Amino acid sequence: MKFGFYMPVRLIQGNGCVREHGEVFGKMGKKAFIVTGKHSARANGALEDVLYALSEAQVEYEIFDEIMSNPTIEVVYRGAEKMKACGGDFVVGIGGGSPMDAAKAIALLYSQDIKEEDLFGGNYKDCLPPMVMIPTTAGTGSKVTQYAILTNDKKETKTSISSDLLFPSVSFLDPGYMRKMGRRTTIHTAIDALSHNVEGMISRRCTDLSDAMAKEGIRAFRDCAEALIQWDGETELSMEVREKLLYASTIGGMVIAHTGTTAVHSMGYELTYFHGTDHGRANGLLLAAFLKTAAGYMPEKVEEILHTMGVKTTEEAGKVLSRLLGPEPALTEEEIEKFAGISAGAKNIKNAPFELSKEEIVEIYRKSLNEE
Amino acid sequence: MKFGFYMPVRLIQGNGCVREHGEVFGKMGKKAFIVTGKHSARANGALEDVLYALSEAQVEYEIFDEIMSNPTIEVVYRGAEKMKACGGDFVVGIGGGSPMDAAKAIALLYSQDIKEEDLFGGNYKDCLPPMVMIPTTAGTGSKVTQYAILTNDKKETKTSISSDLLFPSVSFLDPGYMRKMGRRTTIHTAIDALSHNVEGMISRRCTDLSDAMAKEGIRAFRDCAEALIQWDGETELSMEVREKLLYASTIGGMVIAHTGTTAVHSMGYELTYFHGTDHGRANGLLLAAFLKTAAGYMPEKVEEILHTMGVKTTEEAGKVLSRLLGPEPALTEEEIEKFAGISAGAKNIKNAPFELSKEEIVEIYRKSLNEE
Repeated sequence: MKFGFYMPVRLIQGNGCVREHGEVFGKMGKKAFIVTGKHSARANGALEDVLYALSEAQVEYEIFDEIMSNPTIEVVYRGAEKMKACGGDFVVGIGGGSPMDAAKAIALLYSQDIKEEDLFGGNYKDCLPPMVMIPTTAGTGSKVTQYAILTNDKKETKTSISSDLLFPSVSFLDPGYMRKMGRRTTIHTAIDALSHNVEGMISRRCTDLSDAMAKEGIRAFRDCAEALIQWDGETELSMEVREKLLYASTIGGMVIAHTGTTAVHSMGYELTYFHGTDHGRANGLLLAAFLKTAAGYMPEKVEEILHTMGVKTTEEAGKVLSRLLGPEPALTEEEIEKFAGISAGAKNIKNAPFELSKEEIVEIYRKSLNEE
Repeated sequence: MKFGFYMPVRLIQGNGCVREHGEVFGKMGKKAFIVTGKHSARANGALEDVLYALSEAQVEYEIFDEIMSNPTIEVVYRGAEKMKACGGDFVVGIGGGSPMDAAKAIALLYSQDIKEEDLFGGNYKDCLPPMVMIPTTAGTGSKVTQYAILTNDKKETKTSISSDLLFPSVSFLDPGYMRKMGRRTTIHTAIDALSHNVEGMISRRCTDLSDAMAKEGIRAFRDCAEALIQWDGETELSMEVREKLLYASTIGGMVIAHTGTTAVHSMGYELTYFHGTDHGRANGLLLAAFLKTAAGYMPEKVEEILHTMGVKTTEEAGKVLSRLLGPEPALTEEEIEKFAGISAGAKNIKNAPFELSKEEIVEIYRKSLNEE
């Protein structure tokens, strides 16, 4: 058996939890450096709640709101420079995975000088300012992981900074911030959470405990799948479903904090890098074909995953995902060849307990994107 | 839904894990203060492994080996005095719940002056030395909790110090230390772990996540129950079972770190205080009758627990526990009256989502100990 575990993030959850916990911010220092994107944190009320809590705790703040989807290395260096210029005792990340990951990288770069070529090296000093995360999507695991994933132009993919120093101190989980989220983003992020739980079970680093958690996360997704399929995107999705998706994504994050992600993420990054495909969507497109391949290596584990998803075959899992995702343009054979080459060299693909050949990777891309 | 979570302990698990991780001790300072009992840590090899790891990391140490079962307030004050006299950068607790709980209390009392009347008050300064725990039984949750439970003569029961400051930094989980443990201790501690998982599900502080974990812990116990019943105590119990029991106890600890224990523990403490009944045994004697009473308040939850245990009724659960525990002398009506009075005033009984009347508590004692 394996059941090593490390999850130092304090999770505070519930409607209105940020406003109720000014003291959490107050304990971290006198000045907050807030990292977020241009729009969503303002639209969904998360930024307002943070500013309210900071004011209750008499904490000053500075806002850096320049984070784009799939944040670049450039923007996190720039954020760190700004934080150095204006000061800050702790970092608050508000948004989806992009602002939270960027907030972590900024905290790291603020605390110490790291050359760009050493950024992904993992060799950092233990002097980061504490971090508070406020997720406003229910997909990313960033609120509970030690990862910060950035666009890596040199490698033409996304690459993660991974260090236990990047665990946030506190994350606030309030499903209210997702109330107005549209259908596509809701579905893409939900599938990202599913993918974390599923990939976690097919990682060589999985443990009995991470598998038990992953199954709980998959069950939570399954409970929401039909409501998501039926949802027209015009009416508001029920808060019960929103909350359960946030639960699934939280567990998914705890799982990959232990297992890492594997082939689906490695392969999805290329779809995002070259086609701008939403991260969760990219994972969802690849997941069923990956499971089919994985079933050749570890049939019982895949069987367990399918059973937990409430389906019998990988084809049936693929149909559920297709109904959620809708159609996707095909890739050219040249693209497939190129993407397979890049993802075969990614570090997370090595987390799989079996070695995927380049031919198998090509085959997964082809089945996922070029077949009806 | 509820899924707040906080579990800052780093869990390192596996055969031989202490010897392999000298660096963990090395990072904590130059001198360790080891808290343990007189015999078992020497007999099961845990102390030797710790000394090996400390020597690898060139860390000095002092041993305080005076911890008895159900440690007294006196012994933890004495331990803290000894630590003040000889110095120490961190505390290492080795043993079952008693030495680990005592180690936490000693770390607390070493770090600050606390009067005896304030010991259970919860108002402590954040200046404790880091703690490393090495459990040598598979029952207590102490390796992953913020509790230190001491014998409280003033109240004629056991009372817990509870503070997030008492979470260990690191716990090493090596089932090898349980290899030679006898049948009674093995069973009593296993039932303690079961009780943590079950009580956690019947706590007003339970969450969806703690319930999911508790069910995993109950399943792990269930997988071992028949092997424990059949085991003659002469041959060695299989390491698979040992490992699974350690898993169940680890999860049980994570659960009660979030939920607290409830009535079974409150009521069991009196059996221990007045009759010296082993802690886990005391819980096991009371568990089925408590579930029967709880079923009147929350039938679905109790149903879920029984289903996870693999039994249909609370009576059937009681039979499994009886087969494990064997017979127990009855209590007098005077004792029952007295014990019920004390446990009705305990703080953990208030964690139950329903208020147990004194009559109900009396009834649980009577059914548990005075019926065939």
